[in-house]
Amino acid sequence: MKLQAAIDRVSLEEAKKIAHDLDGIVDIIEFGTSIIKDYGLETLKTQDIKLEKSKLLLDLKTNDEGKYEFEKGFETAADILTVMGGSSKDTIEQTYAVTQAVNKDILIDLIETTDDKIDQVSDCKNAIFGLHHSKDSGKNFDAVASVAQFAQKHPDIKKIAVAGGINIDQAKKIAQQGIATTIIVGGQIAGASDPVKAAKEFMEVIQ
Amino acid sequence: MKLQAAIDRVSLEEAKKIAHDLDGIVDIIEFGTSIIKDYGLETLKTQDIKLEKSKLLLDLKTNDEGKYEFEKGFETAADILTVMGGSSKDTIEQTYAVTQAVNKDILIDLIETTDDKIDQVSDCKNAIFGLHHSKDSGKNFDAVASVAQFAQKHPDIKKIAVAGGINIDQAKKIAQQGIATTIIVGGQIAGASDPVKAAKEFMEVIQ
Repeated sequence: MKLQAAIDRVSLEEAKKIAHDLDGIVDIIEFGTSIIKDYGLETLKTQDIKLEKSKLLLDLKTNDEGKYEFEKGFETAADILTVMGGSSKDTIEQTYAVTQAVNKDILIDLIETTDDKIDQVSDCKNAIFGLHHSKDSGKNFDAVASVAQFAQKHPDIKKIAVAGGINIDQAKKIAQQGIATTIIVGGQIAGASDPVKAAKEFMEVIQ
Repeated sequence: MKLQAAIDRVSLEEAKKIAHDLDGIVDIIEFGTSIIKDYGLETLKTQDIKLEKSKLLLDLKTNDEGKYEFEKGFETAADILTVMGGSSKDTIEQTYAVTQAVNKDILIDLIETTDDKIDQVSDCKNAIFGLHHSKDSGKNFDAVASVAQFAQKHPDIKKIAVAGGINIDQAKKIAQQGIATTIIVGGQIAGASDPVKAAKEFMEVIQ
């Protein structure tokens, strides 16, 4: 299982520092939507954000204009971009096509996405499907149960990421469960007083 | 009825030029999502984007972290910000609360939003509900029929904007229909060889 550490709501300098500190410690480093909307892709293109060992995910959260946003996004050092599962099927298909063409990765963010829409786009075989509990909806998220339920409903989907206030106990349980392929951890790593130490603790429990 | 002119997929310099040219000609000038994701709110805060007469809308398309994004967004010269109807009810309520607190405006973008979700947030009485056909889904959008259908399903919603490839004929018909309170026009104005002339033609048919 892979560990993705998300960095959000900090200055670009701080985000870059955390990212470089975590490079090689976690599998994927995410620059969250807040970093993109605060600083913009044009700025990110000019910054030293390329990672040596970890993959870089930009949480673009595309809702429309899929081709434009993904082409722009992949002009940065990003290896993985995200599209909203709640966007139109056409948008998801456009972003998937751009991603396949450049041989990179896409995560479909399933916040509030209906099962019907998931079924409509489940033929995007190389996409990562991201189970994602809205941050704004508080802490009532049972990640383990959500992953089990998702896998039962959508048995053909193999790449599953899960996000939403995941702590070290939940990470351990998700790893033991053996369904999800990536866990995404936000504040528990990037917001820790020692992000590298926190990341190593998460890596340990998911092995 | 108000006219909102959306500016997208151009450089920030070009966007600013079009915005200042259209200031006072149209009611609302929109900096589209592409401008925000390309340049970022931190940059937009430092730029001369304040308008003298027209209102400024930033098409933030918030999906999560509603409070953070709207507080950041309103640090710019924006009068109106947008949230996705497909985000969680909590996100929409957070963004609505921030907007009310600063006495500004919010547009809920209804791309792919279910009727059930619209009903859940229809008590956001001061929100503008934006009927929005995904750009990526092509041209099969009957704006007039969509507005009529929406008003029938949601009779309590009074502020209705409509967007999606609207040309001058459709604008005229929507004005005659008398339901929508704002029409949003993109490329037909901002992409015209003479945006001011195009905007004036739209203003004329919607009076």
